Amino acid sequence: VCNGARALAIDVGGSHATCAVVADQQILASESLPIPDAGAFGGFLPGLAESLNALLKRCGLTPPECAGVAVSFPGIVDPFSGRIFATPKGKYDDSSTLDLRAWSQERFGLPLRIENDARMALLGEWHAGAAQGFDDVVMVTLGTGVGGAAMMQGRLLRGKHFQGGCLGGHLPARFDGRECICGNIGCVEAEASTWSLPGICRSWPGFAASALARELTLDFAALFRRSGAGDAVARQIRDRCLHVWAAGAVGLVHAYDPELLVFGGSVMKSADQILPFLADYTGAHAWTPWGKVQLRAAQLGPDAALLGAIPLLRETC
Amino acid sequence: VCNGARALAIDVGGSHATCAVVADQQILASESLPIPDAGAFGGFLPGLAESLNALLKRCGLTPPECAGVAVSFPGIVDPFSGRIFATPKGKYDDSSTLDLRAWSQERFGLPLRIENDARMALLGEWHAGAAQGFDDVVMVTLGTGVGGAAMMQGRLLRGKHFQGGCLGGHLPARFDGRECICGNIGCVEAEASTWSLPGICRSWPGFAASALARELTLDFAALFRRSGAGDAVARQIRDRCLHVWAAGAVGLVHAYDPELLVFGGSVMKSADQILPFLADYTGAHAWTPWGKVQLRAAQLGPDAALLGAIPLLRETC
Repeated sequence: VCNGARALAIDVGGSHATCAVVADQQILASESLPIPDAGAFGGFLPGLAESLNALLKRCGLTPPECAGVAVSFPGIVDPFSGRIFATPKGKYDDSSTLDLRAWSQERFGLPLRIENDARMALLGEWHAGAAQGFDDVVMVTLGTGVGGAAMMQGRLLRGKHFQGGCLGGHLPARFDGRECICGNIGCVEAEASTWSLPGICRSWPGFAASALARELTLDFAALFRRSGAGDAVARQIRDRCLHVWAAGAVGLVHAYDPELLVFGGSVMKSADQILPFLADYTGAHAWTPWGKVQLRAAQLGPDAALLGAIPLLRETC
Repeated sequence: VCNGARALAIDVGGSHATCAVVADQQILASESLPIPDAGAFGGFLPGLAESLNALLKRCGLTPPECAGVAVSFPGIVDPFSGRIFATPKGKYDDSSTLDLRAWSQERFGLPLRIENDARMALLGEWHAGAAQGFDDVVMVTLGTGVGGAAMMQGRLLRGKHFQGGCLGGHLPARFDGRECICGNIGCVEAEASTWSLPGICRSWPGFAASALARELTLDFAALFRRSGAGDAVARQIRDRCLHVWAAGAVGLVHAYDPELLVFGGSVMKSADQILPFLADYTGAHAWTPWGKVQLRAAQLGPDAALLGAIPLLRETC
């Protein structure tokens, strides 16, 4: 990053995008925009440019004072060519045809890089959050699905087809388990995530008569609340989910040899009921003759993907 | 590798070591030596030096005509410092105190590098065997245990503590499954490997009355023979093991994003009963929007670790 440590950042979500101006470890200004037509992304680009220009103005900055544009995207992308290979189902179907680098040059005169949102969150936590000072880190997001990213020796793991490290939620937890939306069987995500939880609950013996069955929304907040209140079925399901995540955590340690696991995502609102179990389990079951892997909660929440902008733009090919 | 593509190679096994002189993709001469006292490795070094010198003589070569000494070792090692961190249980306990680089300089005037045996096998298959032409490869060895190694974009994956990519057999296949010798639960290796097979068989419903129970040695040769002959229990256990390996293969694809999986190890004597199933399963269940991962049998057998010598010595730090 030649022009000082400032950047424009865009975090594209499922139904909205956040635009920001960042300076090193800080967000100077940001704005969240709804994405009006989730089917197409191209039509939304003028709105993003307008927002970024307004934010720059608010900060008293101009594009040449920024090192580039960093985009966090929920899909499989090539950070250096800017190409988008895979998008969330039914969303942004035009993405693969867009030349985002040309758009950035034209609108801002700046280089652009794009990266998968889970990798951006890891970069952000590494640069400004829970993973500062560690160069071998796996991040896990427990949420609607189970996402993740891996950094080894200070570099993001990407792989031949840019999938490397991003499918940690799709390591098997039970080879003969539940079908996953990815096409695999028994993935960590299929066995314990927000989308899979209602199905797991409904097929649990004794569920219908349990207190948990009276919850309108079968999410982890409800599960932890009901298990905390002593509901036996809720406790069994909670314990099973914790074991699935813990086994997945050991798998990630065995796969990527990290010093640190960082856990983020909406489910981590109940971190105090999750992290101690995962730390005990990995301490007991991960084969790490060198010592113990640390486990930490993510610190930056949704800001992480924006704060990944500087390290992304700083990366050499 | 400056001095042409010749090297001295040592493949250390559990009870013997193979010494060789290799030239690029070829083994010019080799010799297998029993390791008399498996508790200590240092006392065995003079014998290795003697053997390598005899092999050099047989080839009409001198040490300066070789690029270095490459050691394949069954443990966790630092290839560049030559340090050994972990050895097989009860074996070579003196290894961590040895300065193998100094030994090599003293005896041959050559640099030495050491690498884990599974990584060496992958390097060999990459340089001269089944993985030629691929730079993103995971190797799996199905044998006493389930071993492995991963190469991403032409470089071995090593990780912070030199464990990266080597514990593919210790990704979970069943989070609530059998105890593994590594300390974890439900590893691929615990659910389907030569050491775990007898225990799996004995706890299988109906085993005692099955034809399989009449086998003196409960290994995969016996399992495939009995299942081929129609024994129902043998078929059930075979199918279960195939599913475990297949789930493990999908896990490796999801972890490392390879183009190619190479399967080696003693169990692959029954490759024709294993590979087609694994290829069908990964084709159906691995999430690879870019295309299909190829699966191949290893080609070099025990020579692979020796033929990894040239690429190991060629590697830059």
